[in-house]
Amino acid sequence: MTPEEFRQAGHELIDWIANYRSTLADGPVVHAVSPGDIRASMSATPPTETLSMTAMLAELDRVVVPTMMSVQHPNYLGFFPANASLASVLGDLASGGLGGLGISWQSCPPLTEVEEVTVDWMRQLVGLSDAWRGTIHDTASTATFIAMVCARERASGFSARAGGIAGGAALVAYASDQAHSSIPKAVLVAGYGSDNLRIIKTDGPDYALDPKALDAAMAADVAAGRTPAVVVAAVGATATTAMDPVRAIVEVANKYDAWVHVDAAMAGSAMLLPEMRHLWDGVEGADSVTWNPHKWMGTILDTSLFYVRDPNELVRVLATDPSYLQSPVDGLVTQFRDWGLPLGRRFRAMKLWFHLSLDGVEAIQTRLRRDLINAQWLAGLVEATPHWRVVAPVPLQTVCVRYEPPEFASDADALDRHTLTWATAVNASGSAFISPAKLDGRWMVRLSIGAEPTERHHLESVWSTVRHHAESVPSTA
Amino acid sequence: MTPEEFRQAGHELIDWIANYRSTLADGPVVHAVSPGDIRASMSATPPTETLSMTAMLAELDRVVVPTMMSVQHPNYLGFFPANASLASVLGDLASGGLGGLGISWQSCPPLTEVEEVTVDWMRQLVGLSDAWRGTIHDTASTATFIAMVCARERASGFSARAGGIAGGAALVAYASDQAHSSIPKAVLVAGYGSDNLRIIKTDGPDYALDPKALDAAMAADVAAGRTPAVVVAAVGATATTAMDPVRAIVEVANKYDAWVHVDAAMAGSAMLLPEMRHLWDGVEGADSVTWNPHKWMGTILDTSLFYVRDPNELVRVLATDPSYLQSPVDGLVTQFRDWGLPLGRRFRAMKLWFHLSLDGVEAIQTRLRRDLINAQWLAGLVEATPHWRVVAPVPLQTVCVRYEPPEFASDADALDRHTLTWATAVNASGSAFISPAKLDGRWMVRLSIGAEPTERHHLESVWSTVRHHAESVPSTA
Repeated sequence: MTPEEFRQAGHELIDWIANYRSTLADGPVVHAVSPGDIRASMSATPPTETLSMTAMLAELDRVVVPTMMSVQHPNYLGFFPANASLASVLGDLASGGLGGLGISWQSCPPLTEVEEVTVDWMRQLVGLSDAWRGTIHDTASTATFIAMVCARERASGFSARAGGIAGGAALVAYASDQAHSSIPKAVLVAGYGSDNLRIIKTDGPDYALDPKALDAAMAADVAAGRTPAVVVAAVGATATTAMDPVRAIVEVANKYDAWVHVDAAMAGSAMLLPEMRHLWDGVEGADSVTWNPHKWMGTILDTSLFYVRDPNELVRVLATDPSYLQSPVDGLVTQFRDWGLPLGRRFRAMKLWFHLSLDGVEAIQTRLRRDLINAQWLAGLVEATPHWRVVAPVPLQTVCVRYEPPEFASDADALDRHTLTWATAVNASGSAFISPAKLDGRWMVRLSIGAEPTERHHLESVWSTVRHHAESVPSTA
Repeated sequence: MTPEEFRQAGHELIDWIANYRSTLADGPVVHAVSPGDIRASMSATPPTETLSMTAMLAELDRVVVPTMMSVQHPNYLGFFPANASLASVLGDLASGGLGGLGISWQSCPPLTEVEEVTVDWMRQLVGLSDAWRGTIHDTASTATFIAMVCARERASGFSARAGGIAGGAALVAYASDQAHSSIPKAVLVAGYGSDNLRIIKTDGPDYALDPKALDAAMAADVAAGRTPAVVVAAVGATATTAMDPVRAIVEVANKYDAWVHVDAAMAGSAMLLPEMRHLWDGVEGADSVTWNPHKWMGTILDTSLFYVRDPNELVRVLATDPSYLQSPVDGLVTQFRDWGLPLGRRFRAMKLWFHLSLDGVEAIQTRLRRDLINAQWLAGLVEATPHWRVVAPVPLQTVCVRYEPPEFASDADALDRHTLTWATAVNASGSAFISPAKLDGRWMVRLSIGAEPTERHHLESVWSTVRHHAESVPSTA
């Protein structure tokens, strides 16, 4: 495709996207699609003829649009918000258009330095001190994995440069039972072994990690000859946005020289609001922090920030220096390849730069405050409705609810079935998307507010849909 | 930014990119920029006011354009080609515009199924049998790491779900001395320990791994109580595009039940040409293969294909199933989160789909053949020039050269200094970019043909620049 062909095709695509985004609220949040439907709608063999952009867009209209889940829809309250602000979409396009290659500082100097600058802007915007240095990973899963590996190396006397962890003492990782699935995955992939992950049970009403229980677990491991290596503190855990007490966790971890990784994937966006920063009080004592602008804040995926207090902890584990990547400026510059796994990196900072510059910080903050207020409002509405209960605190924008009519009072399994049945019915209706999750072993439904276009009246409509289905769907007990 | 604001700003950006791409050949390949220059040209504090798209583009013109290395420039012959075809840039934009969220099949059915289809198209296009199933990773570094982890788990009796690798037998990985830097990095991060990486020295003129030396190394490890876990075969190693003999490596590895991972990051693109597939003869016996359409083929980064013969080898290590991600179709669909590290995934298949559909396979193949012919032509020209030598075979599109005038015949260190001096001078001139690398402990210069716009006359111009600098730069001996 020549630049002139690109110009024409690009204009066509921009219009298509503008139309898609401006009309998606008129359609369902979720479409009915069965496994294999989409595969079957495409050719099983590679294309043998070229398409015009018009024909390509017709393919998208035929294959993709009718099968998407519209996470950009105002009635999307599933999982967590996954905003893809149009300003950041344009930043991503600029990155692609420039076609830079991030394998060293030399291979694309602005890719590295704009990342240094924008990531530092983000540090300031969430109120972290200048003791932190950061980079952009694809996801918090990856950032957490990198933290696990660095913790493993610190705890094992930097075994990786020698005999590896085979033959050494068992290293142990700690997290609460509310921690994200990426934690056990990272523990496993980093080679700790699942037996060496201590899941600390949260007993209190706030589903927060208990520092005393953590301390006891770490002491027991030391007594058994194992080495505590890393504690993950969740700031906004996935099911209910539960908040682990970071300061107390740091104090305990310090007794055992363990790495503290703060997983604020969801709640990091809230830290753009000074009044919310008490939620990660003590974060300055941690070793690493990750949070995702690609969730609530809305810089399009993949934009996961990862901050460490000492980049040398990354570099000594992850650095490579093959002859073909050496350049005269080595030693004077940051080589972000040494801060993560991939060698080749995209110009991801462009998304942040565009998002902050075109939308503006103030507009983002205003939207986040809107959602926090709406969450409290919705929680109040739920609590005021007979047989409905808000089942967990609402420190952020996610309201966890259950419909608990008297008929299920003595049959928790039947209640579980009913919860899943009405949640599925809501989603099948196309008028909203919500996601159930388990809490204390029982199903509840998460109403995770924060899609960019979601206003109060959308929530009124979703709440009405939810009530309708929960209160009228026949029990399957 | 509203859809209507996006429409206007998007048109402006599309025009800006079209102009940038159509004029970049008029500018230098590399700009003079010193460490910290770019950081210093930006505000140290976050933006407090919003910019119009016109102002944002002026920022790009001020900060980024004058500091880029133009890997899309016809005189870029550095590292490896890193084409960012404009068709794939539009595919990426479509992905952003749609704003889908890839955390499960349910969260965006087309994201998963279009990936299944396009990755299978790519399988067919490179002539792999239908025994393979694939996915898209960000880079081959990540794909190789995943292969290392799965090999570790297979060799250790799936230790990760139990006590981890601490306490077990040492696991050993094998690769040639030409293997990419991502191999030792993956070995280290996966916890094998650097002591357990056997770098097999390549002695022959083709810089290929010697299966006999591999066999001997594996036997010695077994005799010492260690467990051979994985062999990496490079198909197109980084310095010279050296080709390891995959069939013979598979035969040796099978004796020890070791995983074979084929790193065809660079050469995979060549397999789009049936006449080149002899270069990975035996690949069907491997356990995993990775190759990067984001190199020579030109689907914009990050598009790294990763194929395995048995996806269960991935899933049993990488699967997670938290309640908040469960859906009624689980078990009936592919969950790509269980094939890699990240939970959230972009709609990367869109880039491949657009690239194949808008540019067409035939046009891509024609370009690749052009480059192969040009590489042979250039190698002939170099060999026919007094005191110039092609220092390695040219199986693909990279020509490795050295200027060896008589004055340095007895002083290899002086020759090294001269090589680096003239290579640096060529790059500083702005008229070409080339990258030096070490071979047999001595510096040479790689001329890696394959940027999308590079025609014969560009190579003539680069060769003239190279000769000029090498033959006229004063010796620093």
